[in-house]
Amino acid sequence: MLTLLLPLLAFADPYKVVIQVSDNDPAKWNLALNNARNLQADLGQKNVEIEIVAYGPGIGMLKSESVVGNRIDEALKSGVKVVACENTMRGQKLVKDDMLPGIDYVGAGVVEIMQKQQQGWAYLRP
Amino acid sequence: MLTLLLPLLAFADPYKVVIQVSDNDPAKWNLALNNARNLQADLGQKNVEIEIVAYGPGIGMLKSESVVGNRIDEALKSGVKVVACENTMRGQKLVKDDMLPGIDYVGAGVVEIMQKQQQGWAYLRP
Amino acid sequence: MLTLLLPLLAFADPYKVVIQVSDNDPAKWNLALNNARNLQADLGQKNVEIEIVAYGPGIGMLKSESVVGNRIDEALKSGVKVVACENTMRGQKLVKDDMLPGIDYVGAGVVEIMQKQQQGWAYLRP
Repeated sequence: MLTLLLPLLAFADPYKVVIQVSDNDPAKWNLALNNARNLQADLGQKNVEIEIVAYGPGIGMLKSESVVGNRIDEALKSGVKVVACENTMRGQKLVKDDMLPGIDYVGAGVVEIMQKQQQGWAYLRP
Repeated sequence: MLTLLLPLLAFADPYKVVIQVSDNDPAKWNLALNNARNLQADLGQKNVEIEIVAYGPGIGMLKSESVVGNRIDEALKSGVKVVACENTMRGQKLVKDDMLPGIDYVGAGVVEIMQKQQQGWAYLRP
Repeated sequence: MLTLLLPLLAFADPYKVVIQVSDNDPAKWNLALNNARNLQADLGQKNVEIEIVAYGPGIGMLKSESVVGNRIDEALKSGVKVVACENTMRGQKLVKDDMLPGIDYVGAGVVEIMQKQQQGWAYLRP
């Protein structure tokens, strides 16, 4: 659908993809980070806008003691936006001081994921 | 993409999101229901149209004896549409009398999910 | 959104859906293959274009010794495109001779999934 319009639009903007992390599973956290790295490696860092949204059981990925803390730091430095869901944090009595530095926050992770899609972002659920 | 058009369209329709449940895992069922509730809380019930589609190993969420039966009932009352996949039901020898009251049915859950996306609905796979 | 345009466009192209396989779990592989089969059965084989993308921990689905090898063969014969991620293969020291016959290859599975979505394909993550 919209195949006639797409060739005109494809070069107007970088690719955009929102990556969901909602599992309490470090293997999934690493897979999400690998996905982000591969997107940047393949397309060029400046040609793809990536946002990782952690919510629900996935929030542990962004806690201070996260086993992937170093990789989150690398992702942030490479231009990936990483956001935590404040609804989830409230439910788990987490405050910003409990979380990794440099990340961003959204009121509701699911709203963020839905809105990004409706703004034309691709959706990736590793 | 379509960024010029979106501001014009964003207020024409409520947000729309189809939520997939395909795991035989009550934790995932609760997460899907939390996601629906958070979308309504954040955006206002009348501003977001939500459909939960259960298929494959996720069909147990909608059986009469489902551990989330009460929550499905609340979701239905709040305006969430909840649908079961008849392909899956046939495969598991389930009939409508085996299922929770108030839900809807579609011939194939995956077709429903695909069509909703191609009609502009966002997709959420908790 | 775009509801006025969709009726005009819906008959111009077949439905298109990209199915992601990223779990090392034969139950998920079978579910993905069931999903493809149900889409074809419900819509008619020539009315839906299906591509299955295996990457990360899902790559085992497409190795020569895969427990779903016969079903992949049937899917290919029915017109489903099945692709393996070369990034993942490199990481696991796999070469094409280690893989099932008849499949296709892409440099990066996640790039393929993202691009398909941005070309208007629906996304299914079983």
